[in-house]
Amino acid sequence: MSGPKPQLGLIGFGAFGRLTAKHLASWFDILAHDPAASDDEGLARLTTLEEAAACPVVVLAVPVGVLAETVAAIAPHLTPGALVLDVGSVKVKPAKVMLDGLPDSVGIVGTHPLFGPQSGKDGIAGLRIAVCPVRGDKAAWRVAAFCRKALGLKVFVVSPEDHDREAATVQGLTHLIAKVLLAMEPLPTRMTTTSFERVIQGVDMVRHDSAAVFRAIEHDNPFAAEVRRRFFDLAEQARAELDD
Amino acid sequence: MSGPKPQLGLIGFGAFGRLTAKHLASWFDILAHDPAASDDEGLARLTTLEEAAACPVVVLAVPVGVLAETVAAIAPHLTPGALVLDVGSVKVKPAKVMLDGLPDSVGIVGTHPLFGPQSGKDGIAGLRIAVCPVRGDKAAWRVAAFCRKALGLKVFVVSPEDHDREAATVQGLTHLIAKVLLAMEPLPTRMTTTSFERVIQGVDMVRHDSAAVFRAIEHDNPFAAEVRRRFFDLAEQARAELDD
Repeated sequence: MSGPKPQLGLIGFGAFGRLTAKHLASWFDILAHDPAASDDEGLARLTTLEEAAACPVVVLAVPVGVLAETVAAIAPHLTPGALVLDVGSVKVKPAKVMLDGLPDSVGIVGTHPLFGPQSGKDGIAGLRIAVCPVRGDKAAWRVAAFCRKALGLKVFVVSPEDHDREAATVQGLTHLIAKVLLAMEPLPTRMTTTSFERVIQGVDMVRHDSAAVFRAIEHDNPFAAEVRRRFFDLAEQARAELDD
Repeated sequence: MSGPKPQLGLIGFGAFGRLTAKHLASWFDILAHDPAASDDEGLARLTTLEEAAACPVVVLAVPVGVLAETVAAIAPHLTPGALVLDVGSVKVKPAKVMLDGLPDSVGIVGTHPLFGPQSGKDGIAGLRIAVCPVRGDKAAWRVAAFCRKALGLKVFVVSPEDHDREAATVQGLTHLIAKVLLAMEPLPTRMTTTSFERVIQGVDMVRHDSAAVFRAIEHDNPFAAEVRRRFFDLAEQARAELDD
């Protein structure tokens, strides 16, 4: 290591903020701000919004629902030339919120790590992340290269629209199925088939996702309603066929 | 090995009959009957219904829908003291069909191997099987011991009713979800989450299951309609909440 590590401001120190800090702590000096956090868990230095927002790289690890107010709060404190990233499960809406609310002098990159505290608990190498250029293509490619080389992630550089279209299916369906199956608990655990176990493993991984994540996936993704409609229509069709 | 292997008659040499022959061939001399089969694949000797049915152990590897006629066809040729087993995905209906149609002089055991050609393709040790006593408890325990010791399976000895109640959820739900998701194909393969991949792996395992298997699971299991009703009702409830 030559010289001190660059500073990274982390706004939001919830479950995902902590996961972010854990994996970036060897590369960055992390200054985290979260009024609800009282313990840095040895992963970051807790500080004021002003100080965290003044870092050369700022990561917004807040629910999509409070992104607009977070953007408004940090905007006056950003350093010209800084890079701002979000980590939300949807990308179209956050991209617009950041473009509208952040000063022209900062670069903006949307990211969606396709994992969480659960699927990333044994390490994140080999897992996936979507990287969306929002303001400054070069910045997005730098972020993509860092994710690939430093973190070992599989990186997909895509537009926010392409991301949300695909995520509407991937995450929308997983969460819909999980919602229904979790409501049917207790489910059998003895005479199970391998295929049933795979489905349940998938459900288990999103079992503890917050209501905010579910809301973002189902409400803040512009393509989610259409995926949902197809799923439920096909389910009704299957019901009709089976009850015939 | 001391002396020749005992003979086992296998009625039905479709995908599951072949899987059965493959795993029993080192323990039994297998005489298979299937009018639709022209190649023994080196796993069995193809023969007449009469000869296969006259073996001391007879395994019925036919769709549940044709079990009654199969039972009627083999009944006159069975040897007193023989053991007859089925391998269907449901157990209440086959148990009744076999009890009603097979002579009192033969033992009857229902089995449901909770795997298929797909999930068993890398070996079956560690996979599961349900064993249901139908006529002769001792015979059922002998079958259970063989499955455990010779084949390395996890064995559940249960009544046909208990089996079908649990299978209605395990297999009923897997097939319902698979039916809907397969109808939504092509599904994303790039920006997937681990949880989505688990669900899709489960779906892939039943993708090639025959229509007969699906029908048995959804129509011949007396508890399937109730599980289906709960699943679809909860799905509609989720839809209403989400579209609200």
